[in-house]
Amino acid sequence: MLNPVSWKSNDGKIVRCYSHKLDNQGGRLRLIEQTLLPEKLKYVELDDTESIFDAIKRLVVRGAPAIGCAAAIGLAAIVRKESFSNSTELVNFAQENANRLAESRPTAVNLFWALDLCMREIKENINAAPDDLQNILLKTALDILEEDIQMCRSIGMHGKELLKDGMGILTHCNAGALATGDYGTALSPMYVAHEAGIELKIYADETRPLLQGSRLSAWELNQAGIDVTVICDNMAAQVMKEGKIDLVIVGSDRLSANGDAANKIGTYGVAILAKYHNIPFYVAAPYSTFDLSLDSGDKIPIEQRDPEEIANAFGRRTAPKGINFYNPAFDVTPNELITGIITEKGIFHPPFSFK
Amino acid sequence: MLNPVSWKSNDGKIVRCYSHKLDNQGGRLRLIEQTLLPEKLKYVELDDTESIFDAIKRLVVRGAPAIGCAAAIGLAAIVRKESFSNSTELVNFAQENANRLAESRPTAVNLFWALDLCMREIKENINAAPDDLQNILLKTALDILEEDIQMCRSIGMHGKELLKDGMGILTHCNAGALATGDYGTALSPMYVAHEAGIELKIYADETRPLLQGSRLSAWELNQAGIDVTVICDNMAAQVMKEGKIDLVIVGSDRLSANGDAANKIGTYGVAILAKYHNIPFYVAAPYSTFDLSLDSGDKIPIEQRDPEEIANAFGRRTAPKGINFYNPAFDVTPNELITGIITEKGIFHPPFSFK
Repeated sequence: MLNPVSWKSNDGKIVRCYSHKLDNQGGRLRLIEQTLLPEKLKYVELDDTESIFDAIKRLVVRGAPAIGCAAAIGLAAIVRKESFSNSTELVNFAQENANRLAESRPTAVNLFWALDLCMREIKENINAAPDDLQNILLKTALDILEEDIQMCRSIGMHGKELLKDGMGILTHCNAGALATGDYGTALSPMYVAHEAGIELKIYADETRPLLQGSRLSAWELNQAGIDVTVICDNMAAQVMKEGKIDLVIVGSDRLSANGDAANKIGTYGVAILAKYHNIPFYVAAPYSTFDLSLDSGDKIPIEQRDPEEIANAFGRRTAPKGINFYNPAFDVTPNELITGIITEKGIFHPPFSFK
Repeated sequence: MLNPVSWKSNDGKIVRCYSHKLDNQGGRLRLIEQTLLPEKLKYVELDDTESIFDAIKRLVVRGAPAIGCAAAIGLAAIVRKESFSNSTELVNFAQENANRLAESRPTAVNLFWALDLCMREIKENINAAPDDLQNILLKTALDILEEDIQMCRSIGMHGKELLKDGMGILTHCNAGALATGDYGTALSPMYVAHEAGIELKIYADETRPLLQGSRLSAWELNQAGIDVTVICDNMAAQVMKEGKIDLVIVGSDRLSANGDAANKIGTYGVAILAKYHNIPFYVAAPYSTFDLSLDSGDKIPIEQRDPEEIANAFGRRTAPKGINFYNPAFDVTPNELITGIITEKGIFHPPFSFK
C-alpha cells in the first residue's frame, strides 16, 4: 500500500478508515511529497492551514480524488488541534479554513465537493459538543477517503477481468494510486491483477510535457513490484506494431453522456493507434466522472496551458525564442474509438448511452 | 541562407561553390556549432584534423549529407595549409587524414562516400603538381556541397507544387537545412515556397527524446522567417482534429524498393494519425536514399538507443531507477500510409515500385 493520502494519529498509526479508537486523539494529514518523485519517496505530515493550502497548490498532492481526500483530512486536522468553547465557534472556524483551502486549486471540483460535505456534516450536528464535532469531521473525511479507495478497488476488480497472464498493457499519463486515495483508476486493474498473481508487462507513455507517465505511473507501478517500461509518447505506434501491447487502459477527467472521454493530451492519438492495430482501448473512471449535461465531448472546451512547459525541459531551454507553441492540456477521444468504459459499477460497452 | 556547411576563404568570403578565384587561396571549413542551438547561433572555422574529427563526433555537424560535405571540405582545408615536395607525399598525407576523419562516425555512409570521392579525384590526378591537387581537392569538396544543395533545392521545387498559401504543414524531427548542405529534404519545399511568397504555418513535433524538432527544425524555420509552432509529439492528433494540418512532410533515412520509409521514431505514428484524419502524408528524400536491395521495410533492423535518453531530460532524472526503457531510434512507415515520395527527380505516387 502506498498510502498517498492518509491520517497519521498521534500514536503513530497510519489510518485510512475511521474507528472509535481515534475519538479525541490528535493527528495529522499525511501525504506523499509528489514533487520529489521519482527521485525520492518522502511523506509530509501537516496540520496547519497554510501548509495544507500550499501542498495542494504546489502539487505535493494532485489528481482530483486525491485532492478531495487531502483537503477533507486536512480540515479535520486543522480543526482538531484547536479548543472551542462552543460548537458555533468551531463551525465558524472550520468554515473559514475550508474557504481558504478551497482557493488552493480554483477548478478542482472534488476539492469543493469534499470540503462542502465536511461542512454540511458538522452543521447538521451543530447541537453536538465541540469534541463530538471534531470526531464527526474526522470520520467524514476518512469516509471520503475510504469510499474513494473502495471505488478505485471496484474499478480494479471489474477491469481485472480483462487481464490475463503475460499481457502487455499500455497506459498514458497517471491515473494511478497517486491521483486517488489509492489504487487509482486506469492502474487499479493492474494492481488488483498483480495481487491475484497475474503477471503483466506495463508500458507507460512518458506523457509530455509534464512527464506524469515516467515520473509517477512508472514509479508507483515499480513500487508495487509490477514490470514497467517507459517509452516516449511517439514510440507507442512502434511498440504496438511489434505486438507488445494487448490492451490500452487510460483514465478520464470527464465523460459525456455518449461515452466521449476527455483525458490528458495524447490519449486521443493513442486511441487512433490502438484502433489501427486492432488493440482494445479501455477508459477507466468512476461513474461520477460522467457529466450527463453534455451530450457529446465536442462541447468540452480544451484548456491551453503555459507554452513554457514545452519551451523548457526541466529548466533548460529546448526551443528557440520567437516561435509559437500550442499546448492543449487534454483531448477528447470519441466513443467510436473506445472498446469499453470500466467503472465501479461494471464495464460498459458500446453503443454507450449513459443518460 | 543559413550556410550550415561552407568554405571560408582567407579573404573572408563564405563560399559554397568552386571558382578559380579560390586557386591557391587558403581557407577553412565553416560550420554552425549545432550543439549550441537553439540558444545561440555561432559558426566555427576549422582547418586541423582533430578539431574536424571532434566536430563530427560531437555532433557540431549532424545529418548524413551535411557530414559528408563537412568531411570533404575539412579534408581540403587540412591538406591546403601544408606544403608538399611532391604529389605522392600529398596523396599519402590526405589519405592518412581521410582515414582519421572516417573514424569519427563509424556508421555514416555519406562520410565514407565523400572522403572516398575526394581521394579518388586526387589519386586520378597524381601527375599534377601539389598546388593543383590542392585545388582539385577543394573543387571536389565544394562540388559535393553544391550538388547536395542543388539536389535539396530540386526536392523543394517539386514539393512546392503541393503547397498553397495559408496551408498548415506538420513535420517530424529535423530533415532540414541543418542536416544537409542547405534547404534540407522535408523542409526544402517549405523554404522554396516561402521564397515564392507562399505563406505557410508549420507545426513541428518536438521529437523526443532528443528534441530535434524543437531545437533544430523550429529554429531554422524561424531563422528563415517562416511561421512555426512547436507541439509535443502527443499533440499531433489533436492539432489534426482541429483542422490545422493540411499536409504532413517528413524525411527518410532509408527507403525500400516498395516505398516503405524508415525515419525517426514517431514517424509511423504520425502517418497513422494522418490517415485517420484524411491528411496527405509525404516523404521527402534524395533518390539515393532508396536501398533497392530491400524489397520491403520489414527487413530494416530497428536500432535501440541508450535508455538514458529517456530517463534523463537534459540532466535531470525524470524516471525512477529500476524500471525498463524501450528506445527505438526509428520506425518504418509502410507504403500504404504514404501519399507520395518527393525526390529530386519528381514526386512518386503509389503503387510504388522503384526496382
